[in-house]
Amino acid sequence: MSVSPKSPTQGLDPEKYLKVHSPPSHFQQCKDDIDNFLEFWSQIPDRKIALVTSGGTTVPLESQTVRFLDNFSAGTRGATSAEFFLEHGYSVIFLHRQFSLQPYSRHYSHTTNCFLDYLEMDPKSNQIQVEAKYAEEMKDILFKYKDAKDNRKLLAVSFVTVSDYLFLLNYAAQAMAPLESRALFYLAAAVSDFFIPPELMAQHKIQSTEGELNISLSKVPKFLKPLVSKWAPNAFIVSFKLETDPLLLEPKAKQALVQYGHQLVIGNLLGTRKHEVWFFTVGKEPVHLQMPTDSPHMTIESLFLPRLFELHSSYK
Amino acid sequence: MSVSPKSPTQGLDPEKYLKVHSPPSHFQQCKDDIDNFLEFWSQIPDRKIALVTSGGTTVPLESQTVRFLDNFSAGTRGATSAEFFLEHGYSVIFLHRQFSLQPYSRHYSHTTNCFLDYLEMDPKSNQIQVEAKYAEEMKDILFKYKDAKDNRKLLAVSFVTVSDYLFLLNYAAQAMAPLESRALFYLAAAVSDFFIPPELMAQHKIQSTEGELNISLSKVPKFLKPLVSKWAPNAFIVSFKLETDPLLLEPKAKQALVQYGHQLVIGNLLGTRKHEVWFFTVGKEPVHLQMPTDSPHMTIESLFLPRLFELHSSYK
Repeated sequence: MSVSPKSPTQGLDPEKYLKVHSPPSHFQQCKDDIDNFLEFWSQIPDRKIALVTSGGTTVPLESQTVRFLDNFSAGTRGATSAEFFLEHGYSVIFLHRQFSLQPYSRHYSHTTNCFLDYLEMDPKSNQIQVEAKYAEEMKDILFKYKDAKDNRKLLAVSFVTVSDYLFLLNYAAQAMAPLESRALFYLAAAVSDFFIPPELMAQHKIQSTEGELNISLSKVPKFLKPLVSKWAPNAFIVSFKLETDPLLLEPKAKQALVQYGHQLVIGNLLGTRKHEVWFFTVGKEPVHLQMPTDSPHMTIESLFLPRLFELHSSYK
Repeated sequence: MSVSPKSPTQGLDPEKYLKVHSPPSHFQQCKDDIDNFLEFWSQIPDRKIALVTSGGTTVPLESQTVRFLDNFSAGTRGATSAEFFLEHGYSVIFLHRQFSLQPYSRHYSHTTNCFLDYLEMDPKSNQIQVEAKYAEEMKDILFKYKDAKDNRKLLAVSFVTVSDYLFLLNYAAQAMAPLESRALFYLAAAVSDFFIPPELMAQHKIQSTEGELNISLSKVPKFLKPLVSKWAPNAFIVSFKLETDPLLLEPKAKQALVQYGHQLVIGNLLGTRKHEVWFFTVGKEPVHLQMPTDSPHMTIESLFLPRLFELHSSYK
């Protein structure tokens, strides 16, 4: 069977897209949360606000969704980076894929580092305690988590589909625009390039009895252009470029800088993204940042984010 | 651009599939773990062993995978059920999608129920403690988790792709076959019906510059037939049928029973799967099991699994 013939909305610009599609069901709640967050922080002089996007967007194949296309991302880069932004004095809107990794709790992934393995019963008090060897690290993480939460420094907003993502990014960008250069967009989410317009989607689960499945996907409207030129024209905007073919990375990153006119492209390769990145800025040679070998407790974000903070500080 | 023309492996039977494709990279480790687990438990007279599958399988679109098709499943049913199997005296092989929900830790999902929210610093001792109001529930979960882990009752084995899943299910089934009716297969994973054969997959990330994306997928070989008839012919086998269209559920469940000849199909609908299920067995009317209204702390698994345990106990 075949899904999605030629789409009438193909080639739509993002603003037209937002006019003809429906926002996510929790849109009003998200808008209220974003408004309250920004109202609070915009009053603090010189306080910087970062929107960090994280995780992959989905593309449903059915409107009652059983199957979907996804982009590979656990959300490690976004969740890790959000912690550094917070520690560096930013307030952070964390626009993330539902159930992807979160700042702080990411240190205790249920699969590889389950927090239950760090707990034990104290036979004397019959209370749960953290095993001594893990206690110091967990205290540090718990302290930072509570600080971010209790002091409203971190606002988590979730998306599932690429459509949710576009609606939420558009709203947050326009709400952050008055902050001008205090606003930073750190677009680490893995956003689908292709989607099936809702009006062409199968209503029910596609049945497997009909042999081969053919899917035609339309291109997702490029939102970076209006983000840079209209939604938040004076903000500092950072996009990511992930490739698997090393030969494509530099030309594609440079092309994005020219096409969208934003401040920074961080390039990375699927196989080495946890060890090296490249900074691409207009009119300058790419800067290659690589982890020293034998640094198991260091993350690449700790290496490249200080350089990003400098670029943002000197941005007017 | 177009991905995957007509596949030469389309329509393959599962055993031929396993001969012409490559196993997952961690296959040897999984085989050793399964062998050790079964060697240990098969010696305990009358001990029942359940293989619980959980979470969705992926279908990569690129061999260096940036994009993939996925089936909707957080792994709630599988992870919850595994706990009940353990409490009912089963040893459990938990064959799950990497990073999906796990037995016990699932109670503290990072997004909705983050364990860090349950912890606080004790000002007197300067140690981390569990807030009093959460302590009893967490003690109970921690106790069961440690019991399963320390006494080797739970073996976690992970998959990502549908191909990984087929290799691991095939191996585990053949290894469990000598247990005969003591073995139970509880196939709660959401397995893809369609895939792209590796030999036809794009090598690198598909570029979005080329306009529309067309994907042709082949049918995944139906593994339930050889599982029932050859791999573990005397085991008790339970499959799930998830539909979105209520009219399709009963005919599709009954068709599966006839086609595969196994013991039980548990049917559910996407919208109500946490509140009601139907048991389909050969020659009997379907049994409808529904949660009482106003039972927020109950799970549907606590309602239907006792009936499943009875069916398995009386199975010879």
